[in-house]
Amino acid sequence: MEQQKVANQPASDGPAAAVPAAPEPIVGMVGAGQLARMTAAAAIGLGVRFRVLAAAADDSAAQVVADAPVGDYRSAADLLEFAAGCDVVTFDHEHVPQQALHALEAAGHTVLPPSAAIRLTQDKLAMRRKLGELGVPVPRAVPVASQADVEAVADRTDWPVVLKAVSGGYDGRGVWVCRSYAEIADVIGHGVPLLAEEYVPFERELAVLIARSPSGHGAAYPVVQTIQRDGICHEVLAPAPGLADHVAQGAIQLGLRLARDLDVIGLLAVELFETRAGLLVNELAMRPHNSGHWTIEGARTSQFEQHLRAVLNLPLGAPTMTAPCVALANVLGADDPDLRGKLNHVLAADPALKIQLYGKPVQPGRKVGHVTALGDDMASVRDRATRAARYLATGSEEP
Amino acid sequence: MEQQKVANQPASDGPAAAVPAAPEPIVGMVGAGQLARMTAAAAIGLGVRFRVLAAAADDSAAQVVADAPVGDYRSAADLLEFAAGCDVVTFDHEHVPQQALHALEAAGHTVLPPSAAIRLTQDKLAMRRKLGELGVPVPRAVPVASQADVEAVADRTDWPVVLKAVSGGYDGRGVWVCRSYAEIADVIGHGVPLLAEEYVPFERELAVLIARSPSGHGAAYPVVQTIQRDGICHEVLAPAPGLADHVAQGAIQLGLRLARDLDVIGLLAVELFETRAGLLVNELAMRPHNSGHWTIEGARTSQFEQHLRAVLNLPLGAPTMTAPCVALANVLGADDPDLRGKLNHVLAADPALKIQLYGKPVQPGRKVGHVTALGDDMASVRDRATRAARYLATGSEEP
Repeated sequence: MEQQKVANQPASDGPAAAVPAAPEPIVGMVGAGQLARMTAAAAIGLGVRFRVLAAAADDSAAQVVADAPVGDYRSAADLLEFAAGCDVVTFDHEHVPQQALHALEAAGHTVLPPSAAIRLTQDKLAMRRKLGELGVPVPRAVPVASQADVEAVADRTDWPVVLKAVSGGYDGRGVWVCRSYAEIADVIGHGVPLLAEEYVPFERELAVLIARSPSGHGAAYPVVQTIQRDGICHEVLAPAPGLADHVAQGAIQLGLRLARDLDVIGLLAVELFETRAGLLVNELAMRPHNSGHWTIEGARTSQFEQHLRAVLNLPLGAPTMTAPCVALANVLGADDPDLRGKLNHVLAADPALKIQLYGKPVQPGRKVGHVTALGDDMASVRDRATRAARYLATGSEEP
Repeated sequence: MEQQKVANQPASDGPAAAVPAAPEPIVGMVGAGQLARMTAAAAIGLGVRFRVLAAAADDSAAQVVADAPVGDYRSAADLLEFAAGCDVVTFDHEHVPQQALHALEAAGHTVLPPSAAIRLTQDKLAMRRKLGELGVPVPRAVPVASQADVEAVADRTDWPVVLKAVSGGYDGRGVWVCRSYAEIADVIGHGVPLLAEEYVPFERELAVLIARSPSGHGAAYPVVQTIQRDGICHEVLAPAPGLADHVAQGAIQLGLRLARDLDVIGLLAVELFETRAGLLVNELAMRPHNSGHWTIEGARTSQFEQHLRAVLNLPLGAPTMTAPCVALANVLGADDPDLRGKLNHVLAADPALKIQLYGKPVQPGRKVGHVTALGDDMASVRDRATRAARYLATGSEEP
């Protein structure tokens, strides 16, 4: 007994040798973090076979996915072996090198979104240039290679000056808001390719989430407000409170247009600055996105199901909301590593809250779960979600 | 590459040897059908480690659960080995022999619901007797051992006479409505222990679903109507249309009382006949139940999440509905084995439908998935769900 389970793990001598004749398509996701974990739950309902390429056997998604080989997402050989057992290859992060993506495409694998689209999420300079060509408003940015380059930008545009790593940043990493020459020198000292960007005095941050299928079908979720601190998303409010209809419609049209013009297949999350002069595009992601986690309960079709539908060229699901107001608060690790010990209190205090735990060890500042509240009044659902998230993280309900 | 994934599969030399220090509780479900499959999706969100004891490696749930050893649910040895890797053992069917359950309990494992409660779902005679003792209205029934016994019942109560296998029946199997001596003789010929039951001329069938935790906390979902043909559930309507409030409240109070008096931990589904004289209890199940699948999208807490919360003694979630009307239609296999070929049409025709596919080969009459529709009008959601289920099964929208 306790036999190893092998039925839907491709045998070493061929991708489908041990798989019984199954009409279910097989979607493989490179990366096994919480995005892949939540996609796995959606795949169960859709009857889609789901595999992940994990960095380690205890990754968040690898804990819950039946078919989770371990490999290096930077290795073309590992990716090719993984892809051999998949009908479609997609991603829970944007870190697979272009060279490796090209190897998959050259071998005839279906890679969605395609490498050319993914490149724009890997190279902020290319993204800014492409959006500029498309006439999309973005913060002004230039590549910088030296302290003198940055100082010239600072003198020209005013302080503070924003420096961003051209590639590899996320959750606030790779973004520095510099207010002095000394701070600029520190960042230059990291030795990574940088761009310097004007500091945008935005009113708030918004996000629009689009799904697009190979047939060209697009679907847009309502525009949300995201509340970030130190570049990390803390809260998401759906729909964005008090957003003028024409601004919301503009954001949605912009998102749909970008998905088409950038040839995105799957999800496209567009992070926006709302300024007095209008909307600016801050960042793009082409995968399930933190600003869309609220859709698990808050929309008729979750972003995770929608991503699977899109990459499989299934008709997209309704992105309509299931309640007038939805608030999501991330659980960010604090000093206390014992998340579960506090779960009882939160579940008992508010039986209608929805909690997602990611199975990740608690580390300070790390996203280890999220809380969603749904209702008729935004102030109330926001209070419920943030209190619960705070308590799970810190053991205190006080801010 | 393509390494076997072993992290959360207990090593052969000890149940937890390869598991990193994980605060997550481990729930093991005996059985790997669609009930276990849908429970797996709920476990992902709750951060609960979930294992199944599968009969075969390609069972519905074994396809999607990372830790799915294969074993015989009738074997105490297999069950003990499985239980060694679990904090709680629970079930997706009622077929584990009492002797094997006792072996688990004697070894100190947490078995929920306990064997004494499960016994009442395994032995219809014991169940009828126990409910009779509790003063709960049930159809009159007596054990029968011979043609003469049954004929005596038929002559006393009137035709038709209902014969039921004392144990092992489900989905209409093990239930015979006999209208002649010849039909009685046929059933006697099967050679299984039987009870004879009065034929109840019910108005319709209802079901009430209760969750109960070890702390005694109980939660009840709204009473639903089930529409059965040949003993197989075809549709579920939530809430039961036009049900008088006092009848609904009576059913819920009856369910909560039964859960307590029978010491059920986890879910208790009570199948009811609505008659002119009131409600009669027809069957009990102590696991996720077909009459509760609508709760995945239709209730704030799904029955699958609720079962996990209950057996883990976590506070129960809100069983409130997320929409005024929810209709569910089962997809029962027809002649066409190609379910997925028809999926595109159904998803495109109604983007707000929710579909669950069980990953099971299509066989005539077999439940292979279900469709849920939510809205404000029962006639409309029922039409949407049944049309889609019919099309998935048969390729035609016509009844």
